[in-house]
Amino acid sequence: MIIGIPVYDQVDMFDVTGPFDIFDWAGFDIDLLAAEREPKRFRSKGFTYEVTRSFADARNYDAIWVPGGEPDAIAAIIDDPKRTYLDFLVAQASRVSWVCSVCDGAMLLAAAGLLDGYRATTHWEFVKCFEERFPKVIAAEGRPRFVLDRNRLTGAGISSGLDEALMLVKLLCGTAAAEEVQRAIQYYPDPPVNGTLPSDAPACPLPARRA
Amino acid sequence: MIIGIPVYDQVDMFDVTGPFDIFDWAGFDIDLLAAEREPKRFRSKGFTYEVTRSFADARNYDAIWVPGGEPDAIAAIIDDPKRTYLDFLVAQASRVSWVCSVCDGAMLLAAAGLLDGYRATTHWEFVKCFEERFPKVIAAEGRPRFVLDRNRLTGAGISSGLDEALMLVKLLCGTAAAEEVQRAIQYYPDPPVNGTLPSDAPACPLPARRA
Repeated sequence: MIIGIPVYDQVDMFDVTGPFDIFDWAGFDIDLLAAEREPKRFRSKGFTYEVTRSFADARNYDAIWVPGGEPDAIAAIIDDPKRTYLDFLVAQASRVSWVCSVCDGAMLLAAAGLLDGYRATTHWEFVKCFEERFPKVIAAEGRPRFVLDRNRLTGAGISSGLDEALMLVKLLCGTAAAEEVQRAIQYYPDPPVNGTLPSDAPACPLPARRA
Repeated sequence: MIIGIPVYDQVDMFDVTGPFDIFDWAGFDIDLLAAEREPKRFRSKGFTYEVTRSFADARNYDAIWVPGGEPDAIAAIIDDPKRTYLDFLVAQASRVSWVCSVCDGAMLLAAAGLLDGYRATTHWEFVKCFEERFPKVIAAEGRPRFVLDRNRLTGAGISSGLDEALMLVKLLCGTAAAEEVQRAIQYYPDPPVNGTLPSDAPACPLPARRA
């Protein structure tokens, strides 16, 4: 199996690396892709890392995995008049078996039109963006860790990428393979705090589209 | 707060990046440290990334966080006649408030003598290494996500670093701060598979010490 992860500057580290490690333990190959093979930097105080393949050299992927990141960075990709990143997603979506996003990476799939008519989820702070900005997307009720609708798999905020990546391993290779990864990474989580989420989703925090 | 993460080639990606992202969301500074400021590569099919600071330029840390990795890489650090990495840990342990490891990173703390007389845990496959290789370490019963004994905080396998890193945020900044991070990363995990661990720990998988 080969997974393609299109990255960008100010992508969230965990959205990329948690799932990457899960795919690696599953024995998959993983490409970090960008328009150019230049180093990128993770969000906030994150470090720089290599892009392993350019969009032009993309391989045939079993799934693409669209990570979330800084809202300004997401808005810049959506507003890019060249549509470099969005067009890459559109081209890949017609080739791969599974089209996935995690966190506010769903905004990129939505902006590319790839969630129109699909049930989907995103980080809890971005759920209203579907209604406000991408009304053809059907926001899933509640706060599921991930939502599977036909071949679209969308995850909630950041850490939900772990549950979702294990689900993708299960979809691609079966339950036993996903359980093997669960054992390898000892994924029997038990958070030491019990903070609750606000009951209402806030207004869409994505910067407004430029004219 | 500042956290120091001493890395090495073939370190596990998740052991470094999951906790790094949690510390970043908590508003901490984080240094990736190594003897030399040369790029390192994550374990298995992982990518290369920058080391942000050399051991010689280490700052005053509130905690050091020792990640696990490839057993051969761990063994090479333990066998290093110059003890570069282990001596860095020993020097830091006398300065920082919290001395932490995750996964088989506990082997490095143990080899440095920093867990002698302490209760500790590690990846489930490495628990027997305490008895077989570092008998002064008291292996915690069961399979806790992490163990806190005085100022030593040791985590179980890979993904337990998330629970453990949240615990470190709680220790450094209190419960409300840790809950804020939990909300930001939407950490309400719910694995889609239920694989169980073998009831018995295997023999220590760490390569034998060279003469």
